[in-house]
Amino acid sequence: MQIAIVLYDRFTALDAVGPYEILGRLPGAETVFVAERTGPVRADTGALALTADKSLAEVPSPDLVVVPGGPGQTAQMENGVLLDWLRAADASSTWTTSVCTGSLLLAAAGLLKGRRATSHWLALDLLDRFGAAPTGERVVFDGKYVTAAGVSSGIDMGLALLGRIAGDEHAQAVQLLTEYDPQPPYDAGSPQKAPAHLVEEFRTSSRFILT
Amino acid sequence: MQIAIVLYDRFTALDAVGPYEILGRLPGAETVFVAERTGPVRADTGALALTADKSLAEVPSPDLVVVPGGPGQTAQMENGVLLDWLRAADASSTWTTSVCTGSLLLAAAGLLKGRRATSHWLALDLLDRFGAAPTGERVVFDGKYVTAAGVSSGIDMGLALLGRIAGDEHAQAVQLLTEYDPQPPYDAGSPQKAPAHLVEEFRTSSRFILT
Repeated sequence: MQIAIVLYDRFTALDAVGPYEILGRLPGAETVFVAERTGPVRADTGALALTADKSLAEVPSPDLVVVPGGPGQTAQMENGVLLDWLRAADASSTWTTSVCTGSLLLAAAGLLKGRRATSHWLALDLLDRFGAAPTGERVVFDGKYVTAAGVSSGIDMGLALLGRIAGDEHAQAVQLLTEYDPQPPYDAGSPQKAPAHLVEEFRTSSRFILT
Repeated sequence: MQIAIVLYDRFTALDAVGPYEILGRLPGAETVFVAERTGPVRADTGALALTADKSLAEVPSPDLVVVPGGPGQTAQMENGVLLDWLRAADASSTWTTSVCTGSLLLAAAGLLKGRRATSHWLALDLLDRFGAAPTGERVVFDGKYVTAAGVSSGIDMGLALLGRIAGDEHAQAVQLLTEYDPQPPYDAGSPQKAPAHLVEEFRTSSRFILT
């Protein structure tokens, strides 16, 4: 199985690295980071670059596609090269997946029409515009399409998907190896749980956060 | 505040990217990925490289040091350049931290003597050899030394440390932004919770996993 993780300028690093760390431990799989051009691709903070080892053109038909989100997603919404590649890759993929605002790119490529999907909580409403049915769930399976909520949710998606592909026991082994026994010191990880004024602040400044 | 995240050949990517995604959102902080030499540094699976933007020598006195773990940690245990840098950086740091087997590098540098610390569950006993007092907790604060358990625990450490540095509210805002509301599909993330035969299999093959 070939797993392609898509990079683009100003993606959010954990969106990509969460699923990579889990799905990359699928026995016999080849994981490859891809971008329009090979070489380092800067994440949103500017402080980190991940290497794209292959260009999109070099990986035309991966079995599993992961599209991360991040502030740079907005600029990709009209990037025909990426959207064409997503449509072509999806035509033969076994799984087409996203984390965070990566689902907006799948949606812009026309892949989520009529499908249940999720995204970063600040971007959830935007899925509507592309004919998808947004849900507030953390990980959403609709056929071969798997979308995850914001940033860190890609780890949960990776485990759920690994379980589907390789069985529960393998997924549990990877959970144990990565010691994924979360103990957040706060309980503010969703708009339902966080202090209301923080949610409001993000909503009013969401232009800054997501673009 | 300058945050230095250390890279070396065959580190585990999530060990570094978890804390980066959280601590990198500290207002006014500069985050820099450092390694013995600048350029791409390959993670343990071989499928991913992160860029070290600066050499260790170029970042002599960071305020906060993060040392990830991974199978490549073993080869670094006698790397005088790295251990000397850790000692020198620690002499002026405000916080010296690690994720996973990164704590063994801090210990090898002599920084954890007599201190409570943690590591990946498979490596916990090794801390003893360097005079540290291993605990099974997920995140351990002992003065300015903060160590985290395996791989994914760096996210919890990042949030706890961000709370200490910037206050609870800022840490909660970052938890909300990164939508860190974990919902693992299994409950197998620690040796106490995972199926016993998986724990045993890892223990008997731990040479393979950690070296």
